[in-house]
Amino acid sequence: MPGHTHAEVIHPEKDFTKHSSPEKSHVYCMKSSLKSQSKKMINCMTFPHPDTMPEQQLLKPTEWSYCDYFWADKKDPQGNGTVAGFELLLQKQLKGKQMQKEMPEFVRERIKIEEEYAKNLAKLSQNSLAAQEEGSLGEAWAQVKKSLADEAEVHLKFSAKFHSEVEKPLMNFPENFKKDMKKCDHHIADLHKQLASKARKALTERQRDLEMKTQQLEIKVSNKTEEDIKKARRKSTQAGDDLMRCVDLYNKAQSKWFEEMVTTTLELERLEVERVEMIRQHLCQCTQLRHETDMFNQSTVEPVDQLLRKVDPAKDRELWVREHKTGNIRPVDMEI
Amino acid sequence: MPGHTHAEVIHPEKDFTKHSSPEKSHVYCMKSSLKSQSKKMINCMTFPHPDTMPEQQLLKPTEWSYCDYFWADKKDPQGNGTVAGFELLLQKQLKGKQMQKEMPEFVRERIKIEEEYAKNLAKLSQNSLAAQEEGSLGEAWAQVKKSLADEAEVHLKFSAKFHSEVEKPLMNFPENFKKDMKKCDHHIADLHKQLASKARKALTERQRDLEMKTQQLEIKVSNKTEEDIKKARRKSTQAGDDLMRCVDLYNKAQSKWFEEMVTTTLELERLEVERVEMIRQHLCQCTQLRHETDMFNQSTVEPVDQLLRKVDPAKDRELWVREHKTGNIRPVDMEI
Repeated sequence: MPGHTHAEVIHPEKDFTKHSSPEKSHVYCMKSSLKSQSKKMINCMTFPHPDTMPEQQLLKPTEWSYCDYFWADKKDPQGNGTVAGFELLLQKQLKGKQMQKEMPEFVRERIKIEEEYAKNLAKLSQNSLAAQEEGSLGEAWAQVKKSLADEAEVHLKFSAKFHSEVEKPLMNFPENFKKDMKKCDHHIADLHKQLASKARKALTERQRDLEMKTQQLEIKVSNKTEEDIKKARRKSTQAGDDLMRCVDLYNKAQSKWFEEMVTTTLELERLEVERVEMIRQHLCQCTQLRHETDMFNQSTVEPVDQLLRKVDPAKDRELWVREHKTGNIRPVDMEI
Repeated sequence: MPGHTHAEVIHPEKDFTKHSSPEKSHVYCMKSSLKSQSKKMINCMTFPHPDTMPEQQLLKPTEWSYCDYFWADKKDPQGNGTVAGFELLLQKQLKGKQMQKEMPEFVRERIKIEEEYAKNLAKLSQNSLAAQEEGSLGEAWAQVKKSLADEAEVHLKFSAKFHSEVEKPLMNFPENFKKDMKKCDHHIADLHKQLASKARKALTERQRDLEMKTQQLEIKVSNKTEEDIKKARRKSTQAGDDLMRCVDLYNKAQSKWFEEMVTTTLELERLEVERVEMIRQHLCQCTQLRHETDMFNQSTVEPVDQLLRKVDPAKDRELWVREHKTGNIRPVDMEI
C-alpha cells in the first residue's frame, strides 16, 4: 500500500510544514512578502530561495529516490516549453510498460521457432529412410530416429514451459498488479490523473485567488483617507484575515500536491523495482529452461551412443547368416 | 585386393581338389558313376552325397563367413523357382547400398531443419522488441538477443559440420570404394557379372557337353557286335578319353566358379564390414557433434546468466535519476 510506505518512511507533510509554518504576525507585508528574498514562485509553486537550500535534506538520502529529484520542471529538449519532473517519471513508467509488453512478444516468437523446430524434428523421426537396416547397426539407426522424436519432445516441452512460465507471467503481470491496486482501493491511474491535473489545478486556483486578495488588500490600504483610517484599519485587518485564509488554503493545496507527488513517485519507484525484478526473474527462468533443455537434449543422445558402441559387424553377419544361409556343403569334382 | 585375401586365407582350390582328384582308372562306369551314391548333381554342380559330408570342414570355421553358407540354392519364398545362395548375398549388398544412400538423405533433412532453425533464431535476434530497455536490465536483455544470435551461429556451424563430416562422407563412400577397386584393377561389378552369368554359363555348357559325350559312349558300347569288339574297345577307349577330357574341363569350370564364388563372397563380406564400420563411425560423429552443439549452446546462455545476476533496480534507478533529475529542491509553504 503506497500510502503506508510513504507515511512510514518520510512523513512529507511533517517534513514539509517544518520549514514553513505560517507566521500570523506579519499580516501587512503582502505583495512584498510574496516576492521576498526567502521564497520564489515557479509554476504556481513556492520554492525556497537558493540561499536557504542547505536547510533541506533529501527525503531519502543515498537512495536516489524518485521523490527527491523531480521537483522542478525541465526544459523540453525540442526547445519550446517545459516538462514537469513528474511527467518524466510518468514517461519512464509508460516506456517500462511498453518494454514489458514487448518482451513477451519476443518470447512468443522464440516459442514459435521452437514449436516449428520440434514439429520438423518429429516429422523427420517418422520418416522411413533406411528403416530396413538390419542387425546392431539397424538398432542404432532406429535409435537415431527414436532419439530425434525424443529431442522433438524436449523442444516441445521447452516451448510449452516457455509459454506458461515466461510468456504468460510476463504478459499477465500488469493485470495482477491492477488487481492488487483495486484491493487497496487506491488506483494508480487516479493518482496520476490527480497529480497531472486536479491537484495542480487546485493549486493554480488557490494562487489566483491569493493574488486577487493581495491586490484588494493593497488597493484598500493605498486608498485610505485620514477620516477612514480607523475604518480602513478595521477593513484591512479583515482583508488581512481573508488573505491569511487564502494563504492557508494555498499552502494546504500545495501540501496536498506535495504529498501526492511523494506518494506517487514512491509508488512509481516501487513499480519500477517490481517490474525489473519480475522481468529479471522470468529471464532467469528462461536460462534455467535452456539449461534443462540442453540437459534433456543431451540425454536423448545417450541411447544412440550406447547402441553405436554395441555395433558389431561380425555379430550382425552371424545373425544374418544364421537366418538366411542356404547350405554349407561345397561342390566337389566330378569323378568317373 | 580380394584375390590375395582369399588366396592367403583359405586356398579354396587346394581345399577343393583335395577331396576330389579325378580317378582316371574308372573310365567305363559312365552314366552310372555320374549318378553314383557318392555324388549328386544339383543345378549343374556336383555335390558330395550327404553321407560324405563329415569329410568337409568349414573354410572359415567360427566366422560365419559368407563363403561357407551359401553354396546351395534356396526355394523362392513366393513358391516358384529357386534363388541362388550368391543371389541372396548380392541382394543383401544391394540393400546395404540402398540403406547407405538413404542415410545421408535423412541427414540432409536434419541439416535443413537445423539451418531453418538457425535462420529463424538469427532473424529473431535482429528484432528490435524491447530494445529501449535501460540500465542493467537493458544490458541483460541485449545479451538475450546477442546470445540468441550466438545460438543461431552454433546451430549453423552444427549443420555445416553435419554436412561436411557426416552427410558428404556417407554419400561419397561408395565412390571412394570404386576408386580403390579400380586401382587394384579388379572391379567388383565384373566379379558379380562373372559369377551371376559367365562362370555359371560356362559350367552349364561343360555339363551339357559332358552328358552328350556320355550318351555317345553308351550308344557305342551297347551297339557293339562281336566282330567289332576289338574296334569298339579301341573306339570306346577313344570316347572314354574324350569323356575324361570333358570331365576335366567340367571340373576346371566348376573349380573356376568355386574360386570366384569364394573370392566374391569374401569380398562382399569385407564390403559389408566396411560399410557397417563406416556408418557406425559417422553416426558416432553425429552424436559427437550433438554433444559439442549442446555444450556450445550452453555457453551462449552463460553471459545472459551473468548479466541477469548483475541486474540491480537500485543501481538502474541511480543511473537513470542522475541522468534525468530535474531538481531536488522541494516547494515550501508560502509565508506572509
